[in-house]
Amino acid sequence: MHYADGKTTPCQDVLPSQVKGCSDLNTSAFIHRMIEAERPDLIVFTGDNIFGLDATDAAKSLEEAFAPAISSGIPWAAVLGNHDQESTLSREGVMKHVVGLRNTMSKLNPSEVHGIDGFGNYNLEVHGVEGSGFENKSVLNFFFLDSGDYSTVPSIPGYGWIKPSQQLWFQRTSMSLRKAYTNNPAAQKGPAPGLVYFHIPLPEFASFDSSNFTGVRQEGISSASVNSGFFTTMMESGDVKAVFTGHDHLNDFCGNLMGINLCYAGGFGYHAYGKAGWSRRARVVVATLEKTEKGEWGAVKSIKTWKRLDDHSLTGIDGQALWSKSASGSRRKKVIGGS
Amino acid sequence: MHYADGKTTPCQDVLPSQVKGCSDLNTSAFIHRMIEAERPDLIVFTGDNIFGLDATDAAKSLEEAFAPAISSGIPWAAVLGNHDQESTLSREGVMKHVVGLRNTMSKLNPSEVHGIDGFGNYNLEVHGVEGSGFENKSVLNFFFLDSGDYSTVPSIPGYGWIKPSQQLWFQRTSMSLRKAYTNNPAAQKGPAPGLVYFHIPLPEFASFDSSNFTGVRQEGISSASVNSGFFTTMMESGDVKAVFTGHDHLNDFCGNLMGINLCYAGGFGYHAYGKAGWSRRARVVVATLEKTEKGEWGAVKSIKTWKRLDDHSLTGIDGQALWSKSASGSRRKKVIGGS
Repeated sequence: MHYADGKTTPCQDVLPSQVKGCSDLNTSAFIHRMIEAERPDLIVFTGDNIFGLDATDAAKSLEEAFAPAISSGIPWAAVLGNHDQESTLSREGVMKHVVGLRNTMSKLNPSEVHGIDGFGNYNLEVHGVEGSGFENKSVLNFFFLDSGDYSTVPSIPGYGWIKPSQQLWFQRTSMSLRKAYTNNPAAQKGPAPGLVYFHIPLPEFASFDSSNFTGVRQEGISSASVNSGFFTTMMESGDVKAVFTGHDHLNDFCGNLMGINLCYAGGFGYHAYGKAGWSRRARVVVATLEKTEKGEWGAVKSIKTWKRLDDHSLTGIDGQALWSKSASGSRRKKVIGGS
Repeated sequence: MHYADGKTTPCQDVLPSQVKGCSDLNTSAFIHRMIEAERPDLIVFTGDNIFGLDATDAAKSLEEAFAPAISSGIPWAAVLGNHDQESTLSREGVMKHVVGLRNTMSKLNPSEVHGIDGFGNYNLEVHGVEGSGFENKSVLNFFFLDSGDYSTVPSIPGYGWIKPSQQLWFQRTSMSLRKAYTNNPAAQKGPAPGLVYFHIPLPEFASFDSSNFTGVRQEGISSASVNSGFFTTMMESGDVKAVFTGHDHLNDFCGNLMGINLCYAGGFGYHAYGKAGWSRRARVVVATLEKTEKGEWGAVKSIKTWKRLDDHSLTGIDGQALWSKSASGSRRKKVIGGS
């Protein structure tokens, strides 16, 4: 969102005809429109929620940025970007403030792990339908991680990355969820699908070209300048079907690398750099449940995604399947997110 | 070493004139010669100590392989390769047997860490000279890791890699050693230099060409097909000056990437593939102490390396400096190793 001080904070990179009266409030209006159009079950914010350098008061800026989500009554979650701490609160301070806001599912960090790097590493479970064999286990797993801000190693330039402590937490959490999912009742053969959200794209996002992704790449991939191994860790865990990041505003693609979809959430905020005439956008993710042979709601059978543009009709674009399991029946969980 | 059954196990890829009578015993003889020539303070074996598929009895094969080191009375250390477990013992079984052998500094795993991946993850401290301000802290750190054997992820082909649990252990151990080193007495500004030994080269070994390494590259870099992030983790720790791996037999180079030397130990064993007419070889590493202003022995001031060929005169080649700290005075610690 790159939210700063609200209506006094101007938009960047919009058409000359759009400049007048354009402010952070346009970002808020876009959230409202997305919520109305999609009525999601969860709203995810992929970092740089506020643009710290221009935000006079970080707490106030955060409250205003998340206000449309809060007032919708829909659960929401957020991770930190690289700009959130550049105002009056530290990264820890920002995340602590976020977890205290209404209706959020965000958490500061796992309570059972000592000394994890960063703030805002947590997971959310989506349990199966009440009364079904899946009601006491997670059929869809969300993982949220702090990908840091900038490298603290003098000889490594550029952005931060996900550290071994975070990867080990992710790996063990994923393993424990898999155990529950593959045990009775309704023991499944493999793990439940996982969706991972963090701010800074992995170096592996650079492995696509226009022939093998959906969407556009209009700027470089601003990943860390080193490889943190998190892609490998996710591959090994075997449950992750898609990763959603923010950070780059002019890239909005989704590409599949070795079974994991690497996706941008889409440039959302009006006070962030953009491209005049190229609409701000947000990504929608829908997970659909199967019906079991007994006619009960069962596991997730497919995950799809598309984006909506902040134009007159909230045009939907780039619909694609992210993952599917052969099954029948349907019941949907929907998530929207933007960077 | 790729040791199997001793004198009944033939050599591979030697000149026709060398075939007759050539066996594992030539590997043993080479260790003897290296020890006599260099009188090292520590001997390191970088994995594939035995070639399991051809070893009738893993325990016996291990005992014979390490016998020259054991009988020299010099401390020695070993890590696992990808072939050690292919005989009558599992990876855990091999490492348990190794740590029970005489004069070894090898350890099964850190006792304070729960659930670390692999076997043979441990570190060794080399304390400063007795009576100096450095006698109670490590001036040179060795880290040994199990880089695994093969990928266990169906969609990832090829070799194993160093996992988050191991990287976190390495990172925390390095940090704790740095604390001791930068505290009084003889508080140092930075960390003591670290040397890291494991079997399978990192993907970053492929970032050199003949213009920026010393030695030769005569075959592909057989790293894992994915990046585990361990290079990044070592960069972040800031103490590692060189990494020594085995695995590839026809590559023997050392190249410096962002301050870390990525080195092959050198193809050593006669029952391993090699190249006829291209001598088996081993790498020597020498750390030299500085003298402090008071005339006492102090910190490590430089680390150098060269290789020796198993030819008539154990020819030394490819001498190079790996690291230096500006200082004066000298006292040396020497390590030899082969793959």
